[in-house]
Amino acid sequence: MKIREITVTPVAFRDPPLLNAAGVHEPWALRTIVEIHTDEGLTGLGETYGDLAHLNKVREAASAITGLDIYAQNQIYHHISAVTGDAISDLHGLTGAATKEKSIDRVYSPFEVACLDIQGKAIGRPVCDLLGGPVRDSVPYSAYLFYKWPAHPGTPADRFGQALTPEEIVTQAHLLINEYGFQSIKLKGGVFPPDQEIDAILALRAAFPTHPLRLDPNALWSIETSIRVAHALDRTLEYLEDPTSGIPGMAAVAAKAPMPLATNMCVVTYDHLPPAIAQSAIGVLLSDHHYWGGLTRSVQLARLCETFGIALSMHSNSHLGISLAAMTHLAAAVPNVTTACDTHTPWQDGQDVIAPGALRFTDGSVPVPTTPGLGIELDRDALAVMHEQYVNCGLTARDDTGYIRRFDPTFPTTRPRW
Amino acid sequence: MKIREITVTPVAFRDPPLLNAAGVHEPWALRTIVEIHTDEGLTGLGETYGDLAHLNKVREAASAITGLDIYAQNQIYHHISAVTGDAISDLHGLTGAATKEKSIDRVYSPFEVACLDIQGKAIGRPVCDLLGGPVRDSVPYSAYLFYKWPAHPGTPADRFGQALTPEEIVTQAHLLINEYGFQSIKLKGGVFPPDQEIDAILALRAAFPTHPLRLDPNALWSIETSIRVAHALDRTLEYLEDPTSGIPGMAAVAAKAPMPLATNMCVVTYDHLPPAIAQSAIGVLLSDHHYWGGLTRSVQLARLCETFGIALSMHSNSHLGISLAAMTHLAAAVPNVTTACDTHTPWQDGQDVIAPGALRFTDGSVPVPTTPGLGIELDRDALAVMHEQYVNCGLTARDDTGYIRRFDPTFPTTRPRW
Ligand SMILES: [Mg+2]
Ligand SMILES: [Mg+2]
Repeated sequence: MKIREITVTPVAFRDPPLLNAAGVHEPWALRTIVEIHTDEGLTGLGETYGDLAHLNKVREAASAITGLDIYAQNQIYHHISAVTGDAISDLHGLTGAATKEKSIDRVYSPFEVACLDIQGKAIGRPVCDLLGGPVRDSVPYSAYLFYKWPAHPGTPADRFGQALTPEEIVTQAHLLINEYGFQSIKLKGGVFPPDQEIDAILALRAAFPTHPLRLDPNALWSIETSIRVAHALDRTLEYLEDPTSGIPGMAAVAAKAPMPLATNMCVVTYDHLPPAIAQSAIGVLLSDHHYWGGLTRSVQLARLCETFGIALSMHSNSHLGISLAAMTHLAAAVPNVTTACDTHTPWQDGQDVIAPGALRFTDGSVPVPTTPGLGIELDRDALAVMHEQYVNCGLTARDDTGYIRRFDPTFPTTRPRW
Repeated sequence: MKIREITVTPVAFRDPPLLNAAGVHEPWALRTIVEIHTDEGLTGLGETYGDLAHLNKVREAASAITGLDIYAQNQIYHHISAVTGDAISDLHGLTGAATKEKSIDRVYSPFEVACLDIQGKAIGRPVCDLLGGPVRDSVPYSAYLFYKWPAHPGTPADRFGQALTPEEIVTQAHLLINEYGFQSIKLKGGVFPPDQEIDAILALRAAFPTHPLRLDPNALWSIETSIRVAHALDRTLEYLEDPTSGIPGMAAVAAKAPMPLATNMCVVTYDHLPPAIAQSAIGVLLSDHHYWGGLTRSVQLARLCETFGIALSMHSNSHLGISLAAMTHLAAAVPNVTTACDTHTPWQDGQDVIAPGALRFTDGSVPVPTTPGLGIELDRDALAVMHEQYVNCGLTARDDTGYIRRFDPTFPTTRPRW
């Protein structure tokens, strides 16, 4: 079954002003939707980043693999690696180091997901069956909390409200948990001085005595600060995510921290695994099929992590339903994804390119689709609207720092900040 | 698609008196043939060891997974691990340490291969397409030379003749290469004192100036002997296979040997990888889907090896055509299998359970089947004959040492021997 045509559509959807170490989310989040059409009339879906440099590579890759067989994944990967060449472009500062391999894996990912969607449809099987079969019926996600302005400057307050104090963070947690039923909580940190973020975690602990808690300052802290925070949150955090930058720094913190360290920044491609393992830098890998080369390679990554005693969870950027479906099939088929995965779904606030009904949250978990392929369908009207939004919004790359500096010109990018 | 019934058939085929560190091959080699029949009328084939303790586990496993879905590999693995329990049984001394995990993987393997055979047939695709798609059209194998008696005692000389001297080893190499076209040569060592085996390798080098050469004494040497042989064969061996036993021993040799060390003995299950990697014990892993848990898990293993800079080749025991087909599909789909794989095919000498024509050697390589599934069919008459041979031969487990001691009662099992 050959790839007849690939449609690549950039889209934009409204994003709240979520704060992080790099700045604040802009009013629009960008994604790219990939549709592979085969010569046998089947269509498969993939979703990836929307930044223009990446989008252009995805378009080049789409041309390069048209005509290839949907099972020829090694060949597709090879063709894409020829297109991406030595290009190393990091999208923004929040998913760690950029490498050539990661650039290839990132471009390859949406095509691999779309091919699996097609393979599943062709045989009448959900994608998780192509990954070893489900080991769970539903996949738990965490409540992903953000410090947040009440609204984008100059616009009315959004329904999520302001979240700048520990109390407001607890309120946000209640809102998300009431709506989705999440059983785990993650706070995006790196926004306020560490003591304020410690207070927020302690307030969450008081409000949610049994929910596993995580804190992710996106490597904004020094080794010393990281160790201090780790001890302050002993027995409170399930894991501490990327407190400081780099494998040696993480290893120095890991040696003294009472809880495991997690990362989606210092280990973001296969090349990072040998030094991270040799230095015992991490206890949890937050995998992400968007930059680990798709679903099958993520299963391979999971086996490697299992071999070396590294626990697995899942990282998320702002995404739409195609990614949520892919993440859910993957986590369903990997036995050692044993903690709740991250998702930005609540911040999507109902906007999507897929037809409603395929994915839902029950007690914080998404039931694994049992229909063929990813189990979702494109909503072409919604896609058209979101593409129109992309064209009109004027954004072509995520720039949290540039955006926050419009309102806070002295916003620092020094690392470590604290 | 559910497993309706599984047929497990032990078979025996004539095996020449091939010498190795454990003794000598008995007149019959044992294998187990697994046929999975689905509720949709498709049948898939797998092949594994024939030793009785293993055969019994395979039969138990067959009962345990009947009724399961052929895509539910995680579930099938889980059921099989419950059946094999804590049982740790090594088949013989030649495939390294026995572990619980290896015991499960070994029982699971033929069922996984059979399920992939069915999946391929169901969608009209060769198995290599289910493993990422072929990166090569044919898979190179090596001429696997053995020191050898002229015949089993009390029987007429077989067509392969005696091979006890360097000259006779060269003659054997010519015979195998003339018939199969092999481009690489492996000598099974551990039979004579190391200097004699060095002489055999040097004689092969003189006769075949450009063929990559390998020597495998099955861990029969001390660390000191291993280092001495390694230096004597500097620039002559492509790699030295299992000169000494254990990961620390191999690491000590690797630190001083001028060529990479390969293993199918000190790293035979995932648990062995972290210490072997930490100690830089090996440069080449001889994988074997028969004990690494089937084909998909072997692809995952290949990714791990690529990550850590370990080259891949493939190990072989005496086998039939189902295994050769599986090995060929696997090696076809794994980019980093870059050296010729081992096979015992020549010693099979035309005996097989599969219908002829599906697999052939051209210039030492097996063209990858392009027909659905493994691309082979069971020859039921041949299967019946070989099963009859199994019943009549009286052997229920491989015992190279017991057999050689019938003729050489003082045959030693001291390790290291030299
Ligand atoms: Mg993170
Ligand atoms: Mg060996």
